Amino acid sequence: MQSSPLLESLIEHLRCLPGVGPKSAQRMAYHLLQRDRSGGMNLARALTDAMSKIGHCSHCRDFTEEETCNICNNPRRQNSGLLCVVEMPADIQAIEQTGQFSGRYFVLMGHLSPLDGIGPKEIGLDLLQQRLQNEAFSEVILATNPTIEGDATANYIAEICLQQGIKVSRIAHGIPVGGELEMVDGTTLTHSFLGRRELG
Amino acid sequence: MQSSPLLESLIEHLRCLPGVGPKSAQRMAYHLLQRDRSGGMNLARALTDAMSKIGHCSHCRDFTEEETCNICNNPRRQNSGLLCVVEMPADIQAIEQTGQFSGRYFVLMGHLSPLDGIGPKEIGLDLLQQRLQNEAFSEVILATNPTIEGDATANYIAEICLQQGIKVSRIAHGIPVGGELEMVDGTTLTHSFLGRRELG
Repeated sequence: MQSSPLLESLIEHLRCLPGVGPKSAQRMAYHLLQRDRSGGMNLARALTDAMSKIGHCSHCRDFTEEETCNICNNPRRQNSGLLCVVEMPADIQAIEQTGQFSGRYFVLMGHLSPLDGIGPKEIGLDLLQQRLQNEAFSEVILATNPTIEGDATANYIAEICLQQGIKVSRIAHGIPVGGELEMVDGTTLTHSFLGRRELG
Repeated sequence: MQSSPLLESLIEHLRCLPGVGPKSAQRMAYHLLQRDRSGGMNLARALTDAMSKIGHCSHCRDFTEEETCNICNNPRRQNSGLLCVVEMPADIQAIEQTGQFSGRYFVLMGHLSPLDGIGPKEIGLDLLQQRLQNEAFSEVILATNPTIEGDATANYIAEICLQQGIKVSRIAHGIPVGGELEMVDGTTLTHSFLGRRELG
């Protein structure tokens, strides 16, 4: 039993963070109370602001508190003619960190999953179709996850692009750089053979 | 570059939690935004309440939002005559979980550290002395950490207790249960020999 219901409630609510169990939650609560109350107050404010004010970009559906996000507003990216389709905003973050892609994005916020009632409309494909019609994209890169649902979603979107005569590609699956062949699963190895590239 | 300054600020502030680095902070922020906004709002409220309303018990200095804490208010614990002195509120939590102690506590909120300007007054020893005079304790158990500062603090408090004719004890140091002898450091092993108990 905690000596304070408010402390108990704080520990309970800290557990909504991913990877935080009862022990870490307790450690976090005591740390903030004992050593960093102003940090705790600032975190509370940042949480409230983020949860209440962050919405989705009207162009790409990425997280933003503005009408359109920084990436969509960037003229250099508008001129690239590339559109990368991802499942989640966190995927954009991962791709941006590689520094290899200078086009724009479209976030599905999920993948097709008919059994859960998630159809084309739920993942914003009507908005995507509109953008494909109104903007002149030279290529659409499908970067959904390499799962059954991600692949199915990619295939569905590829159809839409091909119907509109837009070049479409899927990111490569294969052996991770630094990985060892004998440790890689069979499906990945198959993909790696099918996607082999001629050298020289 | 994040697409949203509020998201960036949330990730930054999540790092005030112990054990949360840049990657975990990002994962937490995306998780809350994508899947659990109401959880994030509740956490913000719990944080604000805890940081602003939780103070210290006027008897034992443990965290509480009341004038005195649940443990100090418990008549059964008042009758036990035992007082356990700890450095931090989290220590109480650890001791309570053993279920072995049914007395009351006194929290120093630190330890003596003259070089950092932390003297007897800063760790509330004036309040402790008052309590020792006004309440009839049969034994004071010193459960400060087994560090140089913790030991020095324990010795200092032991003097006070002995001057007032109160029985005083220190928790045992030794090999942790389940530990292996060859893995234990020399100081602990020495404590373990000095603190040996006769059997039978």
